[in-house]
Amino acid sequence: MIIAIDAMGGDHAPQETVKGAVEALKYVKSDLMLIGDEYKIRKELDNYKVDLSRVIIEATTEVITNDDKPVVAIKRKKDSSMVRGLDLLKKNEIDGFISAGNTGALLAGALLRTGRIRGIDRPAIASVFPMDNKMGILTDAGANADVKSRNLLEFAVMGSYYGEFVLGIESPKVGLANIGAEKGKGTVVVQEAYDLLEKSDLNFIGNVEGRDIPFGVADIVVADGFTGNIILKLTEGVAKTFSNNIKSVFKKNVFSLLAGVMVKKGFDDFKKKMDYTEYGGAPLLGVKGAVIKAHGSSNAKAMMNAVRYTEKYIQSGVIEKIQNYVQDRSGEIE
Amino acid sequence: MIIAIDAMGGDHAPQETVKGAVEALKYVKSDLMLIGDEYKIRKELDNYKVDLSRVIIEATTEVITNDDKPVVAIKRKKDSSMVRGLDLLKKNEIDGFISAGNTGALLAGALLRTGRIRGIDRPAIASVFPMDNKMGILTDAGANADVKSRNLLEFAVMGSYYGEFVLGIESPKVGLANIGAEKGKGTVVVQEAYDLLEKSDLNFIGNVEGRDIPFGVADIVVADGFTGNIILKLTEGVAKTFSNNIKSVFKKNVFSLLAGVMVKKGFDDFKKKMDYTEYGGAPLLGVKGAVIKAHGSSNAKAMMNAVRYTEKYIQSGVIEKIQNYVQDRSGEIE
Repeated sequence: MIIAIDAMGGDHAPQETVKGAVEALKYVKSDLMLIGDEYKIRKELDNYKVDLSRVIIEATTEVITNDDKPVVAIKRKKDSSMVRGLDLLKKNEIDGFISAGNTGALLAGALLRTGRIRGIDRPAIASVFPMDNKMGILTDAGANADVKSRNLLEFAVMGSYYGEFVLGIESPKVGLANIGAEKGKGTVVVQEAYDLLEKSDLNFIGNVEGRDIPFGVADIVVADGFTGNIILKLTEGVAKTFSNNIKSVFKKNVFSLLAGVMVKKGFDDFKKKMDYTEYGGAPLLGVKGAVIKAHGSSNAKAMMNAVRYTEKYIQSGVIEKIQNYVQDRSGEIE
Repeated sequence: MIIAIDAMGGDHAPQETVKGAVEALKYVKSDLMLIGDEYKIRKELDNYKVDLSRVIIEATTEVITNDDKPVVAIKRKKDSSMVRGLDLLKKNEIDGFISAGNTGALLAGALLRTGRIRGIDRPAIASVFPMDNKMGILTDAGANADVKSRNLLEFAVMGSYYGEFVLGIESPKVGLANIGAEKGKGTVVVQEAYDLLEKSDLNFIGNVEGRDIPFGVADIVVADGFTGNIILKLTEGVAKTFSNNIKSVFKKNVFSLLAGVMVKKGFDDFKKKMDYTEYGGAPLLGVKGAVIKAHGSSNAKAMMNAVRYTEKYIQSGVIEKIQNYVQDRSGEIE
């Protein structure tokens, strides 16, 4: 198996992408392909002791940046690391592709170059995010701002498979992000989605309100990409402001500084629990191939974990399971 | 001036509603009306030393509960404390009405019994919520799940007036909740709203992402009621899980317990900063009269502050300012 990495994607490329790939070699069985500027990649590789028999370098000359317009970039920058990766995936020359680059471009490229699973209307980003005492999954985390109810059902099915077969959550509890606990709440689309979810085979637990989401009442939180993206980033923002405030409490005087030392380990454990980099990237569910979005600010550790989860993702057969699901209900929904 | 209180609304009614009203008498110039079960109200009032010349009791026999269906309850329970309050407001026999009862019913009742300001398409709930180092306003906090772009513009205008004239924020910064910083992001409706806001006289600072909202980059966060409700409750939920985790860090051993004592004051100050009960209730902006929703779990302090802010709200002339705004642009938007 070959897992390819967009060596040029992300804020710390190619240093951290290459370093992460090198570290991942210890944990995965797959060979790794590094796509990008050959000279730069080789230079980074020189810093490490690497079994080069397991590393393929795929040379490209262009890079899609965060300032590029997604669709335009995918169409014009044909020799970019991102387009090359998606094309190789389409041709089955690689088994998975990871990029920490421009999210919009990766999404557009996955649709235009790799293609979606026939029968899935809109692929979705499934993002791991911290809940009170575990990691949950949020889908869609930002790919589709405007959705129909059938999209929400598909997000739920794909997210549930991902949770069960890749992250190992048994019979994942699926919750619909909503503004009230009772049936009949929310937008027209969300109300329709409730009915579809209720009739599905999923372990659907009903609506989950904003205040319950962080407590982990659901393993899989289903939302349109607009709401999902706000949930994901708001959780990050509130946690950050909270942390800042707490830090300043400890910085008040000599006693509070001492207190800080006394509880440092506890806080470090808590911080580790909240560390998304442990969980690698976010798959684009519904794409005909393993396309994984790593966080733009991914460091080597995040990239290493993305490679590990990508291997799991491929081996889990989630993509085939989604294909089977679509076949089974073909005709059910026009 | 007379401010009326739904004495029967909320989880702690009538004890806390009456107690809050009694405490508010010290801070406001208005007379207060308590609407509800006369016997129960008098019994509660007996617990305090009250200047009864400033308290009016309006007897009703019915109560709308949280289990009631909003529109049905408003139509059937004509002798409820909530319907009475909204009717008295309509007839100008009172100047403001506060309820901690069923939110949906209060909204439906405000529309059906009191009426909206002519030219405002949909009233919105404006809720105060904690940001990093201040209180911000979120509107709509849950009244309208499905919206049009003109609704978002109206929420922004009304929220901005409320922030400026009631909460005293100078030239409030208005941000549109969105999934990216750049123009052109988000749903079709949100993109249209961006254009309307850009052309408006508001201090529009553009899109605000989930991770920036808690830092207070905008004073007024504008969203549809679905997104707004999720932002409000998610902020509450993340803060709560964070607090729980921190508490458990301090409970680990004798050192961490000691550390907890050493930083108690700092944490208490922080907690106070985050205390929404300081800011009273949430007005239904766009209604032809001062209708204020207090939190369902309001205690006496929250109710007292709701009365104080209601007086400010009435005196600020925000309702007249909204009416003038609508007149000025009549014809602009159909």
